[in-house]
Amino acid sequence: MDTETYAFGPYKIDPKEVFYSTHLSYAMVNLRPLLPGHVLVCPRREVKRFVDLTADETSDLWLTAQEVGSQLESYHKASSLTFAIQDGPQAGQTVPHVHIHIVPRKGGDFEKNDEIYDAIDMKEKELQQKLDLDKERKDRSMEEMAEEAQEYRKLLS
Amino acid sequence: MDTETYAFGPYKIDPKEVFYSTHLSYAMVNLRPLLPGHVLVCPRREVKRFVDLTADETSDLWLTAQEVGSQLESYHKASSLTFAIQDGPQAGQTVPHVHIHIVPRKGGDFEKNDEIYDAIDMKEKELQQKLDLDKERKDRSMEEMAEEAQEYRKLLS
Repeated sequence: MDTETYAFGPYKIDPKEVFYSTHLSYAMVNLRPLLPGHVLVCPRREVKRFVDLTADETSDLWLTAQEVGSQLESYHKASSLTFAIQDGPQAGQTVPHVHIHIVPRKGGDFEKNDEIYDAIDMKEKELQQKLDLDKERKDRSMEEMAEEAQEYRKLLS
Repeated sequence: MDTETYAFGPYKIDPKEVFYSTHLSYAMVNLRPLLPGHVLVCPRREVKRFVDLTADETSDLWLTAQEVGSQLESYHKASSLTFAIQDGPQAGQTVPHVHIHIVPRKGGDFEKNDEIYDAIDMKEKELQQKLDLDKERKDRSMEEMAEEAQEYRKLLS
């Protein structure tokens, strides 16, 4: 049983939410995915801006994202992927720890295919509120998230 | 004088538009930047999907994007960066060649900070139309683009 914890900015992420990791990066499921398979890939080290990653961390982060994206696109029978980093507050970053959004995409999943980005931004704000305040809201249960992570762990093992 | 040409999907890019390159990647200015410093970073090899890049290409592409983003953020006195790949048609990709959008961001540059993504999508469509049809439209001149590329070349030399 993995008892390691993962930093996400000032927060600790339960290892049950993490479905893949390397010595430098980890991938976790989302509290409220925008679409099935919407996950985050982060460096293990708490680093705010993309430029602050070492070359090894940058390479490892994106090789991880490439592998995770490919497996989740196939698992969710999608046909495209959105990759985005909101690198800094003026780009919409709310949790000050580099994270790649990966979203498997299908035809017609959003009415306009960019509405996904408004949605990502809303999710960033919600995520922060959730992590900051733990307000009463309809979040997914840890059980549901742990189950999803378990499925993805199989894909990536 | 660089007389090399660069592939961008089925199109040839004039080396005057290219301001940085490695043996695997290149960075070019935009026909119609959304905001000052909005550029594209591409693998030299014509590759449609992100997953089709080799590990060396993936690493080099993102190390290039990291360096280019950092220099352009500073040059344009911005404070954040948007990085995005529309990886496949259902994610909004129009030119079938992997490309990272890098956009230096400042407070208040878009009314909502995600409108940038709608704008990126419009630009993708316009770029394709331009490249496909070369319609009569108010594009930037090659002279203006070459000048901008020359400025960025200095930053990255």
